Amino acid sequence: MAKSQLLLSLFLFISISETISQSIIQLSRDHNDVYCSSWRFSEETNDVGYWDHVPSRCVSYVQDYMTGDGYRSDSEVVASYALGFAKTVEIAGDGKDAWVFDVDETLLSNLPYYALHGFGSEPFDDLSFDEWVDLAEAPALQASLNLYKELKQLGFTVFMLTGRSEYQRNATVKNLQLEGYSDWERLILRESSDQGKPATLYKSQRRLELINEGYRIQGNSGDQWSDLSGFAVSERSFKLPNPLYYIP
Amino acid sequence: MAKSQLLLSLFLFISISETISQSIIQLSRDHNDVYCSSWRFSEETNDVGYWDHVPSRCVSYVQDYMTGDGYRSDSEVVASYALGFAKTVEIAGDGKDAWVFDVDETLLSNLPYYALHGFGSEPFDDLSFDEWVDLAEAPALQASLNLYKELKQLGFTVFMLTGRSEYQRNATVKNLQLEGYSDWERLILRESSDQGKPATLYKSQRRLELINEGYRIQGNSGDQWSDLSGFAVSERSFKLPNPLYYIP
Repeated sequence: MAKSQLLLSLFLFISISETISQSIIQLSRDHNDVYCSSWRFSEETNDVGYWDHVPSRCVSYVQDYMTGDGYRSDSEVVASYALGFAKTVEIAGDGKDAWVFDVDETLLSNLPYYALHGFGSEPFDDLSFDEWVDLAEAPALQASLNLYKELKQLGFTVFMLTGRSEYQRNATVKNLQLEGYSDWERLILRESSDQGKPATLYKSQRRLELINEGYRIQGNSGDQWSDLSGFAVSERSFKLPNPLYYIP
Repeated sequence: MAKSQLLLSLFLFISISETISQSIIQLSRDHNDVYCSSWRFSEETNDVGYWDHVPSRCVSYVQDYMTGDGYRSDSEVVASYALGFAKTVEIAGDGKDAWVFDVDETLLSNLPYYALHGFGSEPFDDLSFDEWVDLAEAPALQASLNLYKELKQLGFTVFMLTGRSEYQRNATVKNLQLEGYSDWERLILRESSDQGKPATLYKSQRRLELINEGYRIQGNSGDQWSDLSGFAVSERSFKLPNPLYYIP
């Protein structure tokens, strides 16, 4: 065989091998994306139940989703439906038409923290998360900030109901204000008697207190089902995406 | 310019134009897919509220999802979490550990009907859908059929609770049996007194009756939030995907 023929054969062999291995990698990635998209469906609809970390095969899928167009778009579309509903509410003018917002992954995004902690692949770590909260550097979720401002314009009374604790009030207020939130009616945090309560119970009890004060909770925005379910629920609930962690 | 040069220029021009127009089409399709994926997130989490047809820009997205890997994979993953939970239930052996299944888009798939009726783009039409039900030709949702059989093996008592009406009992039983379902405890359909009731109320009332009979409703599988919410809810609920229609 001539030298040129040998080189051509070698070149063809390498090209074909590369093409095949690229195709296998792509197929396997597509297959994984289909599974991880289904995992995300199941955790967002609360079918998974309790989970404490993102399945290892879905970590890079979640990273892509959170840092790409998906998360931003999902948040915007949820906010658009929330606003659409809000515009149908007849505001009585007595200041009692209320909207309840959760804070983390609803008004503020902890994505910078989770980007440094494996995008949900590591179990929750109180210590390092508390340090992050103290920095008061969480950016606003832009879609929620826009919705917040529109709701204020429409005349809603806004409550913030968060799983954060009273000792985090100053850092939380500072962070919210730095990011452009203002004129809320009340920021409700866990008191010492609330520690250890499931979020669903704690948040339901606090919503019931608002209802007993005469507020009509028209809307409720949160990234966890425990923000939205239980008792004393709002007229309409708006579930924001969060494939990073689950709070029961 | 020589003829060959002219031809080459023409060829290059056509190639480049084609590449650019293909890129624009692809970009616009990607952009639409991001939106439609977000719409699907919002309708599956019940953020949209009432809707009576798929947004026109998302019809081909929904068609791809329903006929491709997405729908099958989502259904399988939901079923796997349902089975995972079912295996943790301690079956008392008194026949009172119950699982409630919805029928349409849960045990049976009406995809052949919706494929002929615009994949959710047309408002619901009672007449043609009733004719389809009478044919008793809806295929089983494979993931649900597998789950159903596993639950029977585990010792659950199975109830079917459907929005279909009593006059459709024969066709429904025939269809379920043809598709491999057997040994259910009771198939509950709307009686004349249930006509016009929202599904959430009708289904809650029927679940309450089961509880009053001493059944412990451990699991509930359905493609609509109205299958799963209201009162007398199950210990764990499993929301299956359905971007074709919404039942309040």
